[in-house]
Amino acid sequence: MDFKKYIADIYDFPEKGVIFRDVTPLLANKDAYKEAIHFISEFAKDKDVDIVCGPEARGFLFGCPVAIDLNVGFVPVRKPGKLPRETVSKKYDLEYGSNEIFMHADSIQPGQKVFIVDDLLATGGTVNAAVSLIEEMGGEVVGIAFLIELVDLKGRDLLKDYNVFSLIKY
Amino acid sequence: MDFKKYIADIYDFPEKGVIFRDVTPLLANKDAYKEAIHFISEFAKDKDVDIVCGPEARGFLFGCPVAIDLNVGFVPVRKPGKLPRETVSKKYDLEYGSNEIFMHADSIQPGQKVFIVDDLLATGGTVNAAVSLIEEMGGEVVGIAFLIELVDLKGRDLLKDYNVFSLIKY
Repeated sequence: MDFKKYIADIYDFPEKGVIFRDVTPLLANKDAYKEAIHFISEFAKDKDVDIVCGPEARGFLFGCPVAIDLNVGFVPVRKPGKLPRETVSKKYDLEYGSNEIFMHADSIQPGQKVFIVDDLLATGGTVNAAVSLIEEMGGEVVGIAFLIELVDLKGRDLLKDYNVFSLIKY
Repeated sequence: MDFKKYIADIYDFPEKGVIFRDVTPLLANKDAYKEAIHFISEFAKDKDVDIVCGPEARGFLFGCPVAIDLNVGFVPVRKPGKLPRETVSKKYDLEYGSNEIFMHADSIQPGQKVFIVDDLLATGGTVNAAVSLIEEMGGEVVGIAFLIELVDLKGRDLLKDYNVFSLIKY
């Protein structure tokens, strides 16, 4: 399947000079969406995954069906103020300013094999921060999958110690 | 299955006097998560659903696996500034202030049968706004499902013209 047919290229969004890769046409197409979930699950199937983890909000679009498909649970990585119990958090730098992600402090059990799923690999900052939190809690990151990889941004370098898969490359 | 075993009750979150129903233990438990998705899908199976629609971010946790299970696509309802193409939007009142939700203007085709999935039915404002947008675009809302319903808040009254299902009631 030519998945790029289902990605809309939006110029100058969210700011001038950026090409935004919009996944909503893929989500809306039952065959493309199902096949994308299938390929991501297939990548994970030999990895003995205990739990899938995905960042808010677009990571949920792909990570949740993959978790159900793999017959494991799902752990959300969230923005500030969303998780009601004790959390662990990690700040990471953006081009301008910084972001902070949160996970419940009991969300990963020591020894659990964790599969991270997100929509887009750009610089890799968000997922790299999630990896740190998962490892602090004693989890083992056995794979990381993205629907889309922006190859020029070299996010893969930041994640070079991990088994990284992407379905669509730009 | 006693689903309430997998919902954490958090007192005074996000503010004093509120009991927050935290779904993260249910998500993390593969059997509870899978069974919840199964029940929501079962409710929709005789409704000839063309597409599932769910609000950011927790609606994605349940709506996306249900869409895959029903073998249809998924349309996200999003917060301001997230959707890159032409949108339709709807404001609705909260206890203090207001919210506005957005959908891509071409996300629902006239005549499509739409199934809305969200995590929580409280006052029903978000989903009621989504119903308005879907109907403006010519879609037909054939069912609405929630993981949790807070019965005392009477959100069901606002949605009384629709076929509403909830898995867990408080």
